Amino acid sequence: MRAVAWWAVRRRARPARQNGRVTSPAVLDPAIAARLKRDAQGLVAAIVQQHDTGEVLMLGWMDDEALRRTLGEGRVTFWSRSREEYWRKGDTSGHVQHVRSVALDCDGDALLVRVDQVGGACHTGDRTCFDAGDLGATVGAP
Amino acid sequence: MRAVAWWAVRRRARPARQNGRVTSPAVLDPAIAARLKRDAQGLVAAIVQQHDTGEVLMLGWMDDEALRRTLGEGRVTFWSRSREEYWRKGDTSGHVQHVRSVALDCDGDALLVRVDQVGGACHTGDRTCFDAGDLGATVGAP
Repeated sequence: MRAVAWWAVRRRARPARQNGRVTSPAVLDPAIAARLKRDAQGLVAAIVQQHDTGEVLMLGWMDDEALRRTLGEGRVTFWSRSREEYWRKGDTSGHVQHVRSVALDCDGDALLVRVDQVGGACHTGDRTCFDAGDLGATVGAP
Repeated sequence: MRAVAWWAVRRRARPARQNGRVTSPAVLDPAIAARLKRDAQGLVAAIVQQHDTGEVLMLGWMDDEALRRTLGEGRVTFWSRSREEYWRKGDTSGHVQHVRSVALDCDGDALLVRVDQVGGACHTGDRTCFDAGDLGATVGAP
């Protein structure tokens, strides 16, 4: 975990009630954390897909804390490798990603985050980050 | 580039003809290579999607040579981080990925590879590597 030292957090794996509201647990569920295969920077790749059209919108990166927030808040939070900070998609642009589901892949190094995307997912204004990037591949048969 | 020293290859950016057949260039097109933002291991993430249904099948990793082969062969080749070797999907399993298109994202660190997948994409036998991994996220509104 990147932003919070392990000894500084209360290990509380299940949602708790505070003033009658269900609050997010303070750390990622240890059963989920144990399944993650993080890279050298403690990150896993997060593929973001529009839940109904199937469009692949973008790829972001999450550490344990970004995944904890994403699983609990209904909004997608990434770790920004360039800015080295958490980044909740849409907070500045308005292009919010509402979570529909999150799944971890078979070897624990990639997440599939299905969302309802408001506006364009790409900072260029495009709907997806791949719209402008076709590389002219040879098409395979059949 | 991982498997081939830069000084050992002929820099030939366009397809050449050999005995009447169009052959792949020996190195990745430098114009494409210049757009890649590789990680510390020289890799970019490659999201693989079924071209017609929109299913996200798996996430793999490519270095320049794996991308060169994928763009030129009509079949998807990854770099296996665990086995440290090139891996052309389906050569042992039969679960071939026929390339439909390849696009690079806006910041050069992710590829979207649209394919026609034969059989299951996952080594577990599942259709996708995310089928068994739902993490029970809170669903966001609206």
